Parts: sequence; C-alpha cells; structure tokens
Amino acid sequence: MKEKIRTITEKECPLEIAVNTISGKWKIPIIWHMNAGKKRPCEFLREIENVDRRVLNQQLKEMETDGLIAKKSYNQLPPKVEYTLTELGQKLVEVLWQLNEWGKLLQ
Amino acid sequence: MKEKIRTITEKECPLEIAVNTISGKWKIPIIWHMNAGKKRPCEFLREIENVDRRVLNQQLKEMETDGLIAKKSYNQLPPKVEYTLTELGQKLVEVLWQLNEWGKLLQ
Repeated sequence: MKEKIRTITEKECPLEIAVNTISGKWKIPIIWHMNAGKKRPCEFLREIENVDRRVLNQQLKEMETDGLIAKKSYNQLPPKVEYTLTELGQKLVEVLWQLNEWGKLLQ
Repeated sequence: MKEKIRTITEKECPLEIAVNTISGKWKIPIIWHMNAGKKRPCEFLREIENVDRRVLNQQLKEMETDGLIAKKSYNQLPPKVEYTLTELGQKLVEVLWQLNEWGKLLQ
C-alpha cells in the first residue's frame, strides 16, 4: 500500500488503529513470514517479492516502534541483526490466520 | 487506500486474496457500518467521513461482485436501494472484531 488508511475517522476506534498499524507497505507479509521464526533482513528480501531494501528497513523500524517486532543486534563482524515477533505481533498473527481462513471462502 | 496490496506474491495464498478483497478505499468502514444493519447509500455518505459518492458506488459494486454485500432495489419512486451483509460479509465482520480487539492492545 502506498498510504495508510485514514477513513474511519468519526473517532479513533481500535479497528482504525489496528488497520493503520498494519497497512504500511509489506507489513502483513513481513509479519506473516516472521511467523515461521526469527528473520534476518536479507531473508525478507529473498522471500517477499519486489520488496525494496530502503522501504523494508523503514517498515521494520515502524513495526519495532509499534511493538510488533523486536530487533536483536549481535556484536560481531559482519554485523548481524535478527527480528522476532513480540507477544503483540504473535497476537496479530492469530488474527491474520482468521483472515486467511476467511480468504479460503473467496477462492 | 489508493491501490490494492499486491505484495504477498509468491503464490496466491488465502490471506493475500482476503487482504486484496478488503483493501479498497472505505471497504472496511463500509463493512463495519453495515454490521449495524441494512444501509442506504446516503447513510454511508453521512456516516463515513470524507467519503466520495462516486468512489463509494464503485466500492459497493466491487463488494457486491465479491459477494460481501447484497443489493436490494425497491421498485418505487423515488428509487430506493439498500445494502445488507451476506453470510460471507458477516464472517468478515467477525474477523474485524478480532482485529478490533487486537487494536485495543495498541491504545
């Protein structure tokens, strides 16, 4: 997505906050791929089609700020960074599974 | 949103189909508002901020084609049209409630 959804604006409802939090470009695929375990940035670049490194880094940073993922930097050379889902991120994955189930009805 | 999400493209997975189906502009607010019962187009125009009539009609048509909502036209003057959620749309609302619950954790 190129921009965030800002259309449920009567008041800040939890659904609006949720949708705004996950609607950044590639955020859902990032969360979805992390469900399989911790990931290094290069793995996202391999696994998500057409992902751009600069945008990926920006999305990861936003998701870290929002508490969906946690970053671990290893003090080694070459530098190694890994991302894992937080408890909040894991709860989102549970909702995405529900959405995935619903998606099967559309096929 | 200005465009659909096309970022989980390794293969057409149900989650991708689901996200693409609901990511049209105002689709989530439209579904959310219909949870309260059947709606006439003018009610969406009142209840959803900044919604544009032309775009609204386009979204309603897409959602009808996707089977999320059903349109009923009354043979009267002035013409009257009402939209209701289908079973598929109601199941989506259940998932949106889960997402709403998750959104509360972000507040």
